[in-house]
Amino acid sequence: MRYRVGVDLGGTAIKMGLFTNKGELLDCWSIKTNTSNNGEKILIDIAKSVSVKLAMKGIDKKQVEGLGIGIPGSVNHGIVDKCINLGWGSINIEKELGTLSGLKVYAENDANVAALGEYEGGSGSKYSSILFMTLGTGVGGGLIIDGKIIQGFCGCGGEIGHITVNPDEKLSCNCGKKGCLEQYTSATGIRRIALEMLDEDKEESSLREYGDELTTKDIFDEAKKGDIIANKVVDYSMTILARVASNICHVVNPEAVILGGGVANAGDFLIDKIEDKFNKGNIYISGDTKICLASLGEKAGIYGACYLVKK
Amino acid sequence: MRYRVGVDLGGTAIKMGLFTNKGELLDCWSIKTNTSNNGEKILIDIAKSVSVKLAMKGIDKKQVEGLGIGIPGSVNHGIVDKCINLGWGSINIEKELGTLSGLKVYAENDANVAALGEYEGGSGSKYSSILFMTLGTGVGGGLIIDGKIIQGFCGCGGEIGHITVNPDEKLSCNCGKKGCLEQYTSATGIRRIALEMLDEDKEESSLREYGDELTTKDIFDEAKKGDIIANKVVDYSMTILARVASNICHVVNPEAVILGGGVANAGDFLIDKIEDKFNKGNIYISGDTKICLASLGEKAGIYGACYLVKK
Repeated sequence: MRYRVGVDLGGTAIKMGLFTNKGELLDCWSIKTNTSNNGEKILIDIAKSVSVKLAMKGIDKKQVEGLGIGIPGSVNHGIVDKCINLGWGSINIEKELGTLSGLKVYAENDANVAALGEYEGGSGSKYSSILFMTLGTGVGGGLIIDGKIIQGFCGCGGEIGHITVNPDEKLSCNCGKKGCLEQYTSATGIRRIALEMLDEDKEESSLREYGDELTTKDIFDEAKKGDIIANKVVDYSMTILARVASNICHVVNPEAVILGGGVANAGDFLIDKIEDKFNKGNIYISGDTKICLASLGEKAGIYGACYLVKK
Repeated sequence: MRYRVGVDLGGTAIKMGLFTNKGELLDCWSIKTNTSNNGEKILIDIAKSVSVKLAMKGIDKKQVEGLGIGIPGSVNHGIVDKCINLGWGSINIEKELGTLSGLKVYAENDANVAALGEYEGGSGSKYSSILFMTLGTGVGGGLIIDGKIIQGFCGCGGEIGHITVNPDEKLSCNCGKKGCLEQYTSATGIRRIALEMLDEDKEESSLREYGDELTTKDIFDEAKKGDIIANKVVDYSMTILARVASNICHVVNPEAVILGGGVANAGDFLIDKIEDKFNKGNIYISGDTKICLASLGEKAGIYGACYLVKK
């Protein structure tokens, strides 16, 4: 029997999965991300946790084909340029984690890795090419064509969250630009839009009862129940998302667009809100690019990391 | 000695080139496109013209590795879906032209082929990946990554002219949508913007002297001389172009963006008008994507068609 390890390194937790070399998940677990002292312990913690797990399972490292890892930053030929969330500067992660773990390591940007997970093991598995859009605290993405991640020449492929959609925006995005997709379609962005609309629009709305505790999930839940302002918020946000998705399709014409991240938990309601606008935007494209939900949820990252390991 | 033939099939003329199999252009010529009777003579005319040229040069067809051809429509695995400019419905062009010419035929969308030409033999030849944007009567494009055209799952990759940049536009694009990139950055679009600005803005302008004869070349020429309205027109158009180029870079992170087509004849002045806005839009992308002019001019199509021929 041969195995692979998939690691999804996030700012607060590190998810890990033990897989067969056919991509079957045998076990998954997670540890906290220790970002103290510029995250100097992170790779050591990962190596230790993987070693312990393999020992517990009686697996020799020689049986492990490799360890794939998704990083919350751009990765260029195995080297992380910098990673603000983790406190890292430039690190050759494939080399360093390779030495620490005794395994062959393959590293990539986390959103690209999640895209690969959905492509190989999730709802993208029936398509030849996909655009993956992940709508969480931020907005990320990944493009997979014929099984290959489009990394970009310096590892910045799939950075769709910082596409400019509104050049007239007054508020700044975390990236320093103004009017990025992330500002309108992330969980944070959708909540902000709702608070602004509630302030401007004096209409009665069930959203008002949530006060400061309002979450994006609440907004979608109330929209499903028919609340007018909640629906206005969702329509506004999803019109922008549909336009960007369609615009990207004009460039790379993928077979499917797959939506993941916390916002996509709104399910078919989300697809219903996007599909028509998306198809209208695609009118010139003769093919029918499908739009659908991701299916691996929070496990997309570890699945994709497993598939990073080259056969 | 071994050879290749490159064909650039346009709505009014068919450009052809005879190349060595190393991509060296030996001879180029063109014939008129006969679109009568739904373009039924087009492939016959191409086959005949190529055969005559080869005979004149004393080249046996066995010495010809293949014939590449760029088509003004989407091409999917050698099959043209439909091609309005030529009057064509669905045609298996690789098969039909192959039979008529006695050569192995490779077909692709014309803008994708021009992109390949610039990538292999033009100003893209020093980059690993390029986005080619061609600004002519319309706006087209092509994306080449590691030497491969990103065709898209149904041959619609690189259709950047119909990216929606202004959802509030009142005028319709040729494609039926409203607010497409082509409406603001094609030669036709730039001229329209100028006429509108001249109508709205009563300021003195040298552009007024051209009357109905005003061309996009005139607009750039007068902008270079300092005309205020001409500069406003160019700035407006190039701000949109820079934003779209930068947005595409967020998705595919190419090493260079290459501008071709008639509008790009404005030269370095065009690059100066775009570069700063483009770089600002790319702020989040850590790498330095270059923006530069195409170098093959109208020959990009035949060069690219030559490179379509697989070794």
